[in-house]
Amino acid sequence: MRVALYQCSPHPLEVADNLERLRVQAAEAASQGAALVVFPEMFLSGYNIGARAARELAQPSDGPAAQTIRDIARSSGIAIVYGYPELSDDGQVYNAVQMIDAQGARRCNYRKTHLYGELDKSMFSAGDAHFPVVEMDGWKLGFLICYDVEFPENARRLALAGVDLMLVPTANMAPYDFVAQVTVRARAFENQCYLVYANYCGSEGSIHYCGQSSICAPDGQQIGLAGRDDVLLIAELDRASMSESQAINTYFKDRRPAFYSGLGEP
Amino acid sequence: MRVALYQCSPHPLEVADNLERLRVQAAEAASQGAALVVFPEMFLSGYNIGARAARELAQPSDGPAAQTIRDIARSSGIAIVYGYPELSDDGQVYNAVQMIDAQGARRCNYRKTHLYGELDKSMFSAGDAHFPVVEMDGWKLGFLICYDVEFPENARRLALAGVDLMLVPTANMAPYDFVAQVTVRARAFENQCYLVYANYCGSEGSIHYCGQSSICAPDGQQIGLAGRDDVLLIAELDRASMSESQAINTYFKDRRPAFYSGLGEP
Repeated sequence: MRVALYQCSPHPLEVADNLERLRVQAAEAASQGAALVVFPEMFLSGYNIGARAARELAQPSDGPAAQTIRDIARSSGIAIVYGYPELSDDGQVYNAVQMIDAQGARRCNYRKTHLYGELDKSMFSAGDAHFPVVEMDGWKLGFLICYDVEFPENARRLALAGVDLMLVPTANMAPYDFVAQVTVRARAFENQCYLVYANYCGSEGSIHYCGQSSICAPDGQQIGLAGRDDVLLIAELDRASMSESQAINTYFKDRRPAFYSGLGEP
Repeated sequence: MRVALYQCSPHPLEVADNLERLRVQAAEAASQGAALVVFPEMFLSGYNIGARAARELAQPSDGPAAQTIRDIARSSGIAIVYGYPELSDDGQVYNAVQMIDAQGARRCNYRKTHLYGELDKSMFSAGDAHFPVVEMDGWKLGFLICYDVEFPENARRLALAGVDLMLVPTANMAPYDFVAQVTVRARAFENQCYLVYANYCGSEGSIHYCGQSSICAPDGQQIGLAGRDDVLLIAELDRASMSESQAINTYFKDRRPAFYSGLGEP
């Protein structure tokens, strides 16, 4: 399966413009043979927009933006994963990621569970323990958002649920380059899976994003790696090489779960 | 606190020779101001020695080698962490690491819990869930051996027990350079602690060790990094910079343990 991610500067508050960028990039990714394209965290609205704007721009998971993106997905024939501010039935605002497949079906909605500092906490409620797993073309897809992936427990949880492709929209900024350079590779290797890390570049208010989006393979290598500029990054996932890596690195056979119960204690 | 590690080629089966190397390097580390020196996995006997030799060379944790190393620690005035084949009271052979402090006191003994492939399994019994934590000069020390550190749960367990310095004797070989280059840095960063990874270089039978021993800081940087040759590596641990990193990276405040109980399920 061929997958794509779009790294770009955020266009804060410019929803129509962001939907147009999404349309153009989805079409381009599809034309290059990608079956799936991943956009950064809060792509629809921008991320560093403050609590008032986040609430004003928040939409239900089946709101107008989702309708537009269903049309884009269907017309381009590509699955789309994108970040947006979600307005829930009970009026909460979540930092969410939705997947809409190439047939236009909304396949899952994930709400960021591990909020990052005051930036997140001023805008969003934290998601509950709902970690959806979606099957697509024989792959099992799981979802994390930005700070979530820095906790090894979250990626492990997905891997234990059978996920072999982790999709991680992010808005990772300086000075946290380490996460883009090292952490995401470690996650792919220790879980013997693929991982797509779709970040912003450029600036948004006082935030300077660190780019370096990547597509990491089960052997920990970055088979796609962005710099610090806008780019549509595409890579081919290879099930045979994943199986080969898993046969050498038998972590899931060698784990001793009885020793790990403390990780779940308050 | 200043800490040292000794990276070297193994001298398989040469116990007296290895004790002499340990004596020389401990004295040198002490003369350079180190309070602690870490030797690789199974340093006393060599690692790739087969089940028969591992049993023949195995010693109780208070056996003759421990006595000699107590004398070395006392006379050099340095704490010593070393790997050796341990013969237990009930006749099992373990892949163990012992710490003897600068006063010659045996402070703890850790038995490798996650055995690596047939190489380990043909020689050793697996350790039970005994993860000792030792206090020294205001630091809390925890111990893992080689493959143990590749499981994020093990390092997390130590961190949750308050460990701020993880000591990891290892015998890591090609093609697993990734662990030395990436995984150990991720472990230090995600747990906001220091980590000493003391590996072999050179060859032992058909095994080619990958060197690249390191001392990793809480910000994920390698403040000491070996190449592929013998070296006594020394670095200064800085409590203030650790606290600074922990204030920025608040993982232990932001964890959501209720979500992680699945990691402890069979």
